Amino acid sequence: MRNLRALVEYDGTNYHGFQRQPNAITIQEVLETSLADLTGEDLEIIGASRTDSGVHALAQVVNFKTESPIPIEKFAFAWTNVLPDDILIKKVEKVSWDFHARYFATGKIYEYHILNQRLPSVFERNYTHHIKKKLNYKDLVEAADYLVGTYDFTSFQAAGCGANTTVRTINSLTVQGIDSKLIFRIEGDAFLYKMVRNIVGTLIEIGQGKLNKDNLVEILAAKDRTVAGPTAPACGLRLIKVKY
Amino acid sequence: MRNLRALVEYDGTNYHGFQRQPNAITIQEVLETSLADLTGEDLEIIGASRTDSGVHALAQVVNFKTESPIPIEKFAFAWTNVLPDDILIKKVEKVSWDFHARYFATGKIYEYHILNQRLPSVFERNYTHHIKKKLNYKDLVEAADYLVGTYDFTSFQAAGCGANTTVRTINSLTVQGIDSKLIFRIEGDAFLYKMVRNIVGTLIEIGQGKLNKDNLVEILAAKDRTVAGPTAPACGLRLIKVKY
Repeated sequence: MRNLRALVEYDGTNYHGFQRQPNAITIQEVLETSLADLTGEDLEIIGASRTDSGVHALAQVVNFKTESPIPIEKFAFAWTNVLPDDILIKKVEKVSWDFHARYFATGKIYEYHILNQRLPSVFERNYTHHIKKKLNYKDLVEAADYLVGTYDFTSFQAAGCGANTTVRTINSLTVQGIDSKLIFRIEGDAFLYKMVRNIVGTLIEIGQGKLNKDNLVEILAAKDRTVAGPTAPACGLRLIKVKY
Repeated sequence: MRNLRALVEYDGTNYHGFQRQPNAITIQEVLETSLADLTGEDLEIIGASRTDSGVHALAQVVNFKTESPIPIEKFAFAWTNVLPDDILIKKVEKVSWDFHARYFATGKIYEYHILNQRLPSVFERNYTHHIKKKLNYKDLVEAADYLVGTYDFTSFQAAGCGANTTVRTINSLTVQGIDSKLIFRIEGDAFLYKMVRNIVGTLIEIGQGKLNKDNLVEILAAKDRTVAGPTAPACGLRLIKVKY
């Protein structure tokens, strides 16, 4: 019996998020049933991040325990072969018996992509959030800096969601403009439920002049979800890296 | 009654090409039925390029004659609103009564995108042709130059397809490597059926060392489809511009 870790890329458009749930297709379910087909085992997949419906991943990390004799260097290819074409196994490697994709994670990097131009793009429709009116990049970039550090992020946690502690550390939050695209890159130790999308939704309001950077200090201090901006749509978000 | 010209962007993945056909959904059909819903008229849409199944367009040009009183500056938005999200009307303008999107076209620009890296990408799966093994860019770029000019392109025309004349002019054919992407950009007066994909398929074989640039001269001279390389897959192709 081996404990294996896999790097998984997926287009989340057609899935109800990562985590298994009744009556809706999820990434976890498809990974588990495909692996059952491949190995004949009834396996449990543990994912590092429980990405939401419509959210993408370039490098989700999962682990599972298996007795399958498939050689490690052929595992990724064999598994990808039994998966739909919107899920790709990039790598499979053997890890120590106690490795747990979620508990062992020490940090995560997400990106959020905005298409900021008059017209939408049919090619980007599932991978970016389209905003017609030109955002004020300067205000937004300056404001992003205010969120780097260790704070109580209650105001950015999805309402009605009770984590043990709402204190989180954002190690970096950068915003880059490439042509008509605006790319947020955020790295933290861990994130509260919908925290990244709530932060982006709030920064968008700053870019639109509806809020200013000083409001951010008040929003953090309020510890109240209703004072921050709306949740940015899922399609713009992608998990880039899980750190161990 | 006005003759209107529209600029149309579409993701061709879920369509059986542009041209209307029985028992299969096409771009033309969706454009016509959506326009009928919008205007109440039974209209015929003329497209500049009859793109194949799975081929994309950034700027297909179509025209149609309508009595609809919808103001010209609101037409694109109103039409897009009744279309599925993989088709976008970028612009609508009034043109002279005799304008015909296909007959008036004086040139077309296509791009072909290859993803040349070990792993495929789920995000690029419908928009690039994935080739695992590194292609020899230098050989391929040099060979591309041999095709610029006016030639009989019979060897690159889909077999069994009889155009009036098989002489065409390629004004430019450039190949650009950006990270792991290889982008072919080809401009010509008009193209034979599947000509662009047959040219790309042949250049790929040169990049793989299966053919060399001197073979290209022989292939052109042979006027025989069976001596050229295979047809590159549709998903990598996109119509970029129609010139008038």
